[in-house]
Amino acid sequence: MAVSVTAALLVIGDEILTGRTKDKNIGYIAEYLTAIGIDLREVRIVPDVEDEIVAAVNALRQRYTYLFTTGGIGPTHDDITADSVAKAFGVGIGQDPRAVAMLRERYQPHELNEARLCMARIPEGADLIENPISKAPGFRLSNVFVMAGVPSIMQAMLENIAPTLEVGARMNSEVVEAEGIAEGIYAEGLGQIAAANEGVSIGSYPSFSAAGFRNQIIVRGKNLAAVEKAAAEVRDLLGRLKGDRAPL
Amino acid sequence: MAVSVTAALLVIGDEILTGRTKDKNIGYIAEYLTAIGIDLREVRIVPDVEDEIVAAVNALRQRYTYLFTTGGIGPTHDDITADSVAKAFGVGIGQDPRAVAMLRERYQPHELNEARLCMARIPEGADLIENPISKAPGFRLSNVFVMAGVPSIMQAMLENIAPTLEVGARMNSEVVEAEGIAEGIYAEGLGQIAAANEGVSIGSYPSFSAAGFRNQIIVRGKNLAAVEKAAAEVRDLLGRLKGDRAPL
Repeated sequence: MAVSVTAALLVIGDEILTGRTKDKNIGYIAEYLTAIGIDLREVRIVPDVEDEIVAAVNALRQRYTYLFTTGGIGPTHDDITADSVAKAFGVGIGQDPRAVAMLRERYQPHELNEARLCMARIPEGADLIENPISKAPGFRLSNVFVMAGVPSIMQAMLENIAPTLEVGARMNSEVVEAEGIAEGIYAEGLGQIAAANEGVSIGSYPSFSAAGFRNQIIVRGKNLAAVEKAAAEVRDLLGRLKGDRAPL
Repeated sequence: MAVSVTAALLVIGDEILTGRTKDKNIGYIAEYLTAIGIDLREVRIVPDVEDEIVAAVNALRQRYTYLFTTGGIGPTHDDITADSVAKAFGVGIGQDPRAVAMLRERYQPHELNEARLCMARIPEGADLIENPISKAPGFRLSNVFVMAGVPSIMQAMLENIAPTLEVGARMNSEVVEAEGIAEGIYAEGLGQIAAANEGVSIGSYPSFSAAGFRNQIIVRGKNLAAVEKAAAEVRDLLGRLKGDRAPL
């Protein structure tokens, strides 16, 4: 098993950048990949502009084990992801007979017009990713997985992809509640624990709500014993400190 | 007034990439900037790793009018945004007396320990961004605005920043409901309208819910008359087509 399998996510779509559509895929994919043992290391959101998509695909696919994309694979003129990915790889693109066959499961011959057939444009050498909801497939080209932007379809595609992915050691994490102790009070000791525990990452996350604030310390790492040791040290630290009812 | 003022957003934090925290800032900032006449062109999410933050800051600040960042300005060891931004600019960083004065409004002298004073580390030459909620300031260095990650604090900082920003022409947008007409039916005509209306961008957005699907066509542009003309053409197109009750 690889020690670390990494990934990036590229979200494609003007509608996310204008705020009209609030992305629901980033958090879902982040949590999903983390759970199966893939480290999501970077996310980018770019508009429906070919040069931007090509540049981001090439930057990210070369840097991480996997690149996942969402958005831009429908039948309208603003759906340019497949052509952009083909261009990024320098390969041809055309109507894929396997993808046409999938569309035929959904559309009658007279319904399968030019625009809908655009959803069968797949780069040469790609494998298809089935879409159980609306049939138009995503695809995998080398280490790049192209998925739909509609969350329910993206989620179904990710389910189909997951068994084919190489995964690394899963991340273990332990949450320590800082119960009313301010970050500024435990920061010094926490920094010392973080520095002394290599291979373990320790984050401190304040959150605010109507009920007040809540600080959580998350200890994460691939080695469970190392995580448990560091988390015990954090609990020990908090036990020695007095809370002063302030979040930071 | 500038025709186009552009921006990028850099979200900093391991917790977003693991999916533990679901980002609430991207959609808010996207909508906010769009409304005041700034075009958000790119978003990146990177972990709490100095080299990653430095590289992203330098890539984005050189490319867009403004760069906004969220996250990593608290008092704990994983809060490395201020130091990373100083490094990206190649400027020094130290305890800023103005920032210390702000922290003194909140903390008693005996509470203002080393860790909390870290929140007063500000790069040389930066202006401070006030934080009405927990006092620890953000800052502006050249065209880069460094804000907190906690949504309520980020939003308050953005309110403080907004009046100082140069803005461009506001985007006008018109929504045309495609009422039961499938994307694949209107795609060809919509593409023709998009090609014939320069300076106007037309997007088609299917969404699915328990109630069925809903396709919306959004016509956007800086010139209101051009948007209205294109939207009228889209409504005209839809009026000529028969719906076939399928989303794509």
